Amino acid sequence: MEKKIEFMLRAIELSKNGLESGKGGPFGCVIVKDGKIIGEGNNQVTSTNDPTAHAEMVAIRNACKNINSFQLEGCEVYTSCEPCPMCLGAIYWARPDKIYFANNRSDAAEIGFDDAFIYDEIEEKIENRQIQMEPLGRMEALEIFKQWKLKTDKIEY
Amino acid sequence: MEKKIEFMLRAIELSKNGLESGKGGPFGCVIVKDGKIIGEGNNQVTSTNDPTAHAEMVAIRNACKNINSFQLEGCEVYTSCEPCPMCLGAIYWARPDKIYFANNRSDAAEIGFDDAFIYDEIEEKIENRQIQMEPLGRMEALEIFKQWKLKTDKIEY
Repeated sequence: MEKKIEFMLRAIELSKNGLESGKGGPFGCVIVKDGKIIGEGNNQVTSTNDPTAHAEMVAIRNACKNINSFQLEGCEVYTSCEPCPMCLGAIYWARPDKIYFANNRSDAAEIGFDDAFIYDEIEEKIENRQIQMEPLGRMEALEIFKQWKLKTDKIEY
Repeated sequence: MEKKIEFMLRAIELSKNGLESGKGGPFGCVIVKDGKIIGEGNNQVTSTNDPTAHAEMVAIRNACKNINSFQLEGCEVYTSCEPCPMCLGAIYWARPDKIYFANNRSDAAEIGFDDAFIYDEIEEKIENRQIQMEPLGRMEALEIFKQWKLKTDKIEY
């Protein structure tokens, strides 16, 4: 069996395990580097009271911990469903080389998940979003950004 | 001092603490419910090797832990910078009532952070994104989604 299909089937297996054990939604993810799985995760939102514990987030955190890095350069993400905006954002911050996904955002909407809605909201202008967003305190906050710019021993990411 | 300014100044203070102690980028966040802070966070990406450890994510996870819930209904998010797509996605999943933000995504780009780039990428069609995305295994994954739909004891979120 082709390696990439094997990795995806593992991600799907994780989604099934999470569903059957009541950990959370039906989502699984594996992170692969140099042909080996270096991180895994399934959705754990409801069992850990953590709305950020999507499969991709859990897998990214697990992989980063295992390789002691906050970057996943040279890695591939295999996820049982197209990443939601939170997870896609996390993937961009981790900077892997490639994403393989199985179900898509419409499939997720079809079984009751907000992925497509959140994509629509993110593309809306700030003033038109359903969660109200109000600017406050920019002058004070800009001072800290200036300090960051001047900091000589910072670790960039 | 008006309460909302007080909460934002605390978020900015957290951003300053994180910067000065070398925990990570210059970002802080507090979550408020019924006029009280129920969760706090500052960016810890580089100090914990966790690319998902943005201030908002840390604060959301902290608040949810403190109130034993995966939802932040009735809460307000005060963040020292406009949330990146990952954090905005997390906020939508947590479903607070309102977001206050200080610096904006252009301010973040100005000091070297990818927020604006990731917003642009999320709005791109999948086939045009800089991280390649390839569909794989949808038929197998759809089976698990069907099981979720039929599951009678699931906790929805």
